[in-house]
Amino acid sequence: MIAFVYRQLNDNANRYLAAHLPEGIQPVFRTALKPDEYQQAFRQADFILGNPPRDWFSNLPQQLKFWQLSSAGFSEYEGMSAPVPTANMGDFFARPCAETIVGGVLAFYRGIHELTRLQLKKDWQGEKLRTSLRLLGDQQAIVLGAGAIGKRVKEMLLGFGCPVMMMARTNPSAEIHSREELMKALPQTTLVINTLPGSADQFVTADMLEALPPQAVYASVGRGETTDEQALIAALRAGKLAGAVLDVTEEEPLPADSPLWQMEHVILTQHTGGGKSDELIGIAQQFINNLQRFLNQQSLIDPIELSRGY
Amino acid sequence: MIAFVYRQLNDNANRYLAAHLPEGIQPVFRTALKPDEYQQAFRQADFILGNPPRDWFSNLPQQLKFWQLSSAGFSEYEGMSAPVPTANMGDFFARPCAETIVGGVLAFYRGIHELTRLQLKKDWQGEKLRTSLRLLGDQQAIVLGAGAIGKRVKEMLLGFGCPVMMMARTNPSAEIHSREELMKALPQTTLVINTLPGSADQFVTADMLEALPPQAVYASVGRGETTDEQALIAALRAGKLAGAVLDVTEEEPLPADSPLWQMEHVILTQHTGGGKSDELIGIAQQFINNLQRFLNQQSLIDPIELSRGY
Repeated sequence: MIAFVYRQLNDNANRYLAAHLPEGIQPVFRTALKPDEYQQAFRQADFILGNPPRDWFSNLPQQLKFWQLSSAGFSEYEGMSAPVPTANMGDFFARPCAETIVGGVLAFYRGIHELTRLQLKKDWQGEKLRTSLRLLGDQQAIVLGAGAIGKRVKEMLLGFGCPVMMMARTNPSAEIHSREELMKALPQTTLVINTLPGSADQFVTADMLEALPPQAVYASVGRGETTDEQALIAALRAGKLAGAVLDVTEEEPLPADSPLWQMEHVILTQHTGGGKSDELIGIAQQFINNLQRFLNQQSLIDPIELSRGY
Repeated sequence: MIAFVYRQLNDNANRYLAAHLPEGIQPVFRTALKPDEYQQAFRQADFILGNPPRDWFSNLPQQLKFWQLSSAGFSEYEGMSAPVPTANMGDFFARPCAETIVGGVLAFYRGIHELTRLQLKKDWQGEKLRTSLRLLGDQQAIVLGAGAIGKRVKEMLLGFGCPVMMMARTNPSAEIHSREELMKALPQTTLVINTLPGSADQFVTADMLEALPPQAVYASVGRGETTDEQALIAALRAGKLAGAVLDVTEEEPLPADSPLWQMEHVILTQHTGGGKSDELIGIAQQFINNLQRFLNQQSLIDPIELSRGY
């Protein structure tokens, strides 16, 4: 049987996979193939690790038995019915995502981005900078989304003494459940952290950004398409927001002509949110664990229903 | 009577002071004087706000009644006996100091300093950066000092799920009380945050830094003189430490020829730690509050005994 490793890993994770695949299963690494061989390898797979293009699945490999996504989100497969038992990475990226977005926000309030620029010029301006700094703990925060990332973000903010409300349509642990409630709360909110999945397309609109006070900061570690990016850029340009911290953008890599690159009150974390040094080996481990569970007819870790399109 | 405002404030805070001084008290702002008039104004003061040179106090103003320091630390007056009732800024700087050092450390683990440098070049390298990132929550931390800053730092780290021990010689809330216990714990420690006062001169020595594992990060928001800076630079150069986050240095501003400026694994926060937008007005408020309490024969907020030399 064949395990097709669509996800590009590194040597270490590839070696781990090869060593830990159950007997009788051969790995085929996409990265060892030529581009015109990719789809053929997909069609011969019994097991898949990674997120191949959606259209490949319209002609389903007959012998495919189990599919492990290498991501937490799977909006690119929205509405597709799962051809075989399927699992995602569950909460695997939640902690690194939460640390990056809270880290970016804290860097913004404490001027770490400005200090980094000053360091490059060997320019000591600390005394001048001090009175422009603010405290994360003084903010009134709303976290959009009450999933694994949102919950982690909330825990971290509470450690700074920052009051936090969460918004989610149905999750009972959230304080805000509707757009109306949200709009009412925004004028008293100075920090919004978006952790929404791709299904919340264009959730953050111009009127939401305008309801915020001018000292507010907008941060997003959700999906790029959940924010009206043009409205955000306009608000930042007009001084209607104090700044933004963006792990995600509508287009990635961010095009060179995007005005976001040059805005000094914007911190771009370049979709590093889920990253950590053991990320690739962790993906390999989740695949091996689930493969063994599948073969032993045990329930999968982090099984998903693709049709939910989360 | 005269209130001598030695501390340089801003227009806003000066106006606040002038408007709120009790009747019969005139403010004299040092910043409105010529340098050769400073000491004469000091000698005529009934009340002082700020930290004048220590040697001025060897000839004590006869009519001096109350002295408000504009700092939390007062090691420069160590061993001097308080000539009049004296107060410091207590915990006023604790939260901003803690946020800056935790912000710098979190920026280090999540690569915010590298991302800022990439943003200047419009260079999207997120995918490559991801696997070099680490999590604050995965570290084993020791906080040196269990004062107001140390306690705030601990609360913040706990929000990330990071195990924290505190070191203080006598404070019962600390887990580590001696240098011997500290040396024993360092090989299992990956993050040290120094919040020590100036009285702990050269506390962090070469052998302490060498006892840490090579993936460890050293951060300091204490006083510059509490760290053997040459030993730290040597350890960073030799790769014996993963990096450093320094709010304080032995000499400030940091001299242009210091190798720290150019180290990419060092984040310099330029003694901005205590800063916040309402810092100067807050100092003015504490002075006015204490002045009124003094005149009403009430106990001071944050009174100190200078002879403790903290």
